[in-house]
Amino acid sequence: MTTENMTCDIGFIGLGVMGKNLVLNLADNGYTVAAFDLSTDKVEDAIAQDALENKSGSPRVVGCSSYTELFSRLKAPHTIVLSVPAGAPVDHVCESLIGAGIQPDDIVIDTGNSLWVDTVEREKKYKNNFILFSSAVSGGETGARFGPALMPSGSPYAWTRIKPIWEAIAAKVDPATGKPLERTKPGEIVENGDPCAAYIGPAGAGHFVKMVHNGIEYADMQIICEAYHVLRAGLGYSPEQVADIFEKWNAGPLDSYLMEISVEVLRHKPNNDDTPLVDLILDKAGQKGTGLWTAISALEVGCPAPTIAQAVFARSISSFKALRVKASTRLAGPTLPELSEQEKQAYVDRLHDAIYCSKICAYAQGFQLMSLAAKEYKWTLNFANIAKIWRAGCIIRAIFLQSITDAFDRDSELENLLVDEFFVEQLNKHQLNWRQAIADATLLGVPIGAISSSLSYYDSVRCGVLPANLLQGQRDFFGAHTFERVDAPAGKKFHVEWSSEDRKLIQL
Amino acid sequence: MTTENMTCDIGFIGLGVMGKNLVLNLADNGYTVAAFDLSTDKVEDAIAQDALENKSGSPRVVGCSSYTELFSRLKAPHTIVLSVPAGAPVDHVCESLIGAGIQPDDIVIDTGNSLWVDTVEREKKYKNNFILFSSAVSGGETGARFGPALMPSGSPYAWTRIKPIWEAIAAKVDPATGKPLERTKPGEIVENGDPCAAYIGPAGAGHFVKMVHNGIEYADMQIICEAYHVLRAGLGYSPEQVADIFEKWNAGPLDSYLMEISVEVLRHKPNNDDTPLVDLILDKAGQKGTGLWTAISALEVGCPAPTIAQAVFARSISSFKALRVKASTRLAGPTLPELSEQEKQAYVDRLHDAIYCSKICAYAQGFQLMSLAAKEYKWTLNFANIAKIWRAGCIIRAIFLQSITDAFDRDSELENLLVDEFFVEQLNKHQLNWRQAIADATLLGVPIGAISSSLSYYDSVRCGVLPANLLQGQRDFFGAHTFERVDAPAGKKFHVEWSSEDRKLIQL
Repeated sequence: MTTENMTCDIGFIGLGVMGKNLVLNLADNGYTVAAFDLSTDKVEDAIAQDALENKSGSPRVVGCSSYTELFSRLKAPHTIVLSVPAGAPVDHVCESLIGAGIQPDDIVIDTGNSLWVDTVEREKKYKNNFILFSSAVSGGETGARFGPALMPSGSPYAWTRIKPIWEAIAAKVDPATGKPLERTKPGEIVENGDPCAAYIGPAGAGHFVKMVHNGIEYADMQIICEAYHVLRAGLGYSPEQVADIFEKWNAGPLDSYLMEISVEVLRHKPNNDDTPLVDLILDKAGQKGTGLWTAISALEVGCPAPTIAQAVFARSISSFKALRVKASTRLAGPTLPELSEQEKQAYVDRLHDAIYCSKICAYAQGFQLMSLAAKEYKWTLNFANIAKIWRAGCIIRAIFLQSITDAFDRDSELENLLVDEFFVEQLNKHQLNWRQAIADATLLGVPIGAISSSLSYYDSVRCGVLPANLLQGQRDFFGAHTFERVDAPAGKKFHVEWSSEDRKLIQL
Repeated sequence: MTTENMTCDIGFIGLGVMGKNLVLNLADNGYTVAAFDLSTDKVEDAIAQDALENKSGSPRVVGCSSYTELFSRLKAPHTIVLSVPAGAPVDHVCESLIGAGIQPDDIVIDTGNSLWVDTVEREKKYKNNFILFSSAVSGGETGARFGPALMPSGSPYAWTRIKPIWEAIAAKVDPATGKPLERTKPGEIVENGDPCAAYIGPAGAGHFVKMVHNGIEYADMQIICEAYHVLRAGLGYSPEQVADIFEKWNAGPLDSYLMEISVEVLRHKPNNDDTPLVDLILDKAGQKGTGLWTAISALEVGCPAPTIAQAVFARSISSFKALRVKASTRLAGPTLPELSEQEKQAYVDRLHDAIYCSKICAYAQGFQLMSLAAKEYKWTLNFANIAKIWRAGCIIRAIFLQSITDAFDRDSELENLLVDEFFVEQLNKHQLNWRQAIADATLLGVPIGAISSSLSYYDSVRCGVLPANLLQGQRDFFGAHTFERVDAPAGKKFHVEWSSEDRKLIQL
């Protein structure tokens, strides 16, 4: 197979783990790709991998050694996909493309985890040089290879050109069941099915939605880890036994990719002895920023997102390993009770319900955050569509996303998932077990910040009168910050003259 | 008393609640003040108030109607205090002062709640025109009048000029007991005592420390509000009865200004009938940004601060009143148990310990945040001094701050209060009650996000092995993010080839 003089459909820059797999996915779907990376090794590796997998008889991927060569391999107007780390590298590539003669009608698609405000700035900055479009990708390595969830946003015109390609490479969902239609082998494609790619909105909206996806992912992972911790440290189960419990849970409403891979991780014994992998892994969690950005965005737009923030803080606490080891010899916990198998089973059942309800709260927070951000930044977001594209391909894919899709199909303006009829029913059914599971873990001495902050969120949302009235009283006392009254129109301000003798309540 | 041709010691701009009271405080301490505000009413009001209070026989405050007049009333080099809202107004005044001929050796002291990064920028921006110094003020209206806590930072040279003034007007602490020496009447001054004013560090450091003070204040207030909520909604006590309980608590280790004013607020009945003020106040909490900035800073420097973040989120949840009212009719809680007086008393006692321990965690988070920020931004902070200046004058003043001072006196490099010997002893003594109180409130259906996240923080910090190992396994599975091993040197990266048949564990 010779590639001399071959003209390709798509240019691709950045052949790391995600990039290489996206290239192979494009190739499987019939697109020819001109591929470039600063490292020639990575270019050669992508070509070698394609050669191994390519059964089509004609070449699919062409390696390029410069941006100029890349352009020479593409039809105009050009469509170029970027898969480079967020931040400065994106601008570096954009500037290089300008140097290599990119045209105003060319499209550059940023598929990295860029901070959404950077994307907004970049679209403006480069608009006279080319069309910067963005499309966050979720699904990790395997998703990129066999079908990720895609969150395209930016120029609607650019989307008309990108749409067929994006719908082809995206994960697919069986429209009848809402379940993923999985591809697992090179060369395989799924002809039918709902593609997990839908236009999100103007520049920045797609990266914002992806950021919130990752924030939810942090919460989801942390909730699972807390359940593991309760089962392991609180109830004394082995990783293998926890995997058995998770496997059972994964057959019910908790059915999700993250639960599934947790089972895989917990069962893995890499040494051909009894040592589980999980006990070999150092308990210091890394983070790349998107969870943290989600928590900051929530604070900025005034959206309560305690479960997501707790998940971020759990990772940061884990990084202080030396402090923890020191503290572990000084700070006391409870004495663990002797529990019968039957009692343990009751703990496990309650914990299941706690995970489920906490997960609902994490998603409720994420969706409310998107809704408040949309108001703040003047985007029109379709939440049913967003839930739909998360049903397959992405890291938080779960049976559960279909219920969220249904909720927004019932009411596209739904303010919070916690008042949707389906979730109301689920929460009401499980709230007592959820409470008891938190009491259990608290008395067992196992930290469950994400699970317990979810219940506090639930109990606050269902609270007609919060103690914020006392708080407003305190603020008025020390800082004359004033307050509104329950029996006066909104916006009217009142103050007590605290330092005067008679402490009169006055209207301002 | 004529003020014609009078030359003053200090210029003062901004005569709002805080400004007017700082002016009168300066006057009580023998400083003459040239005062300006954009509103002439406020200037007249300050002069009238001074006339009422001034028993000295000579004038103390002169009103000015322009910046030019202000300069004409001051000795050079000029010292000018600003008390204007954070943000654009500060720059507006700075620019006007330049227009009015301010000199490079003049000092402008920003006493507002400026965002610390703005202060850093402003010092640079104006350095050729004048010396921008900052000194956050805590203590609200009464603190400003009779002695606030002051957190000066910026040019050390400027501090040598400001120090005598600042030490005069600051709150004072009895060096023997660590307790506030209170002034409560105009004209009163406290001759001896440790002043709550100590140089914090370079530009920005003072506002950062004040910001963290406010973050801790948010947490402290929220913890008290949650205790009130448990007592009121969970145990059925009236505001009056809660005030009695708080009053008792205020005689022990919880002795603090915020507890004291909570009693005042809960006892207040403004209508001459039985309706307590707290039931007239709308339960939507306001916020001015400093708590939120603290939570964001914690996320940015990787400091776990879940209690502070929960307090911010509690305020934002309170603002969604309509959603809450709707949810309150749909989402279920537990049925409240019938409790005997004796059982209730046991709940109350446990709750006391929960407040105390949660408060320790909130302060531990705030101090660790300052310590991590100091590393990040290259400040040398003296934490014993910071705790010392918070012992009186400021909103979070409490007997408790003396224990923190002592802890940093024992070890100025203390990484976290939770490993100090005194706090270890306190926490170990109370942790069982703390747990049971959380279990109580959880089963009573009362939201306690700040209290329960504090315990999760405690249980995480004292945990030698966190489930972050499973989390790193998940991240390696879906994103090839790699992990470290417990049995390999720090920094060495490992990965499992999850998609291959034999799932080999490899070193990278």
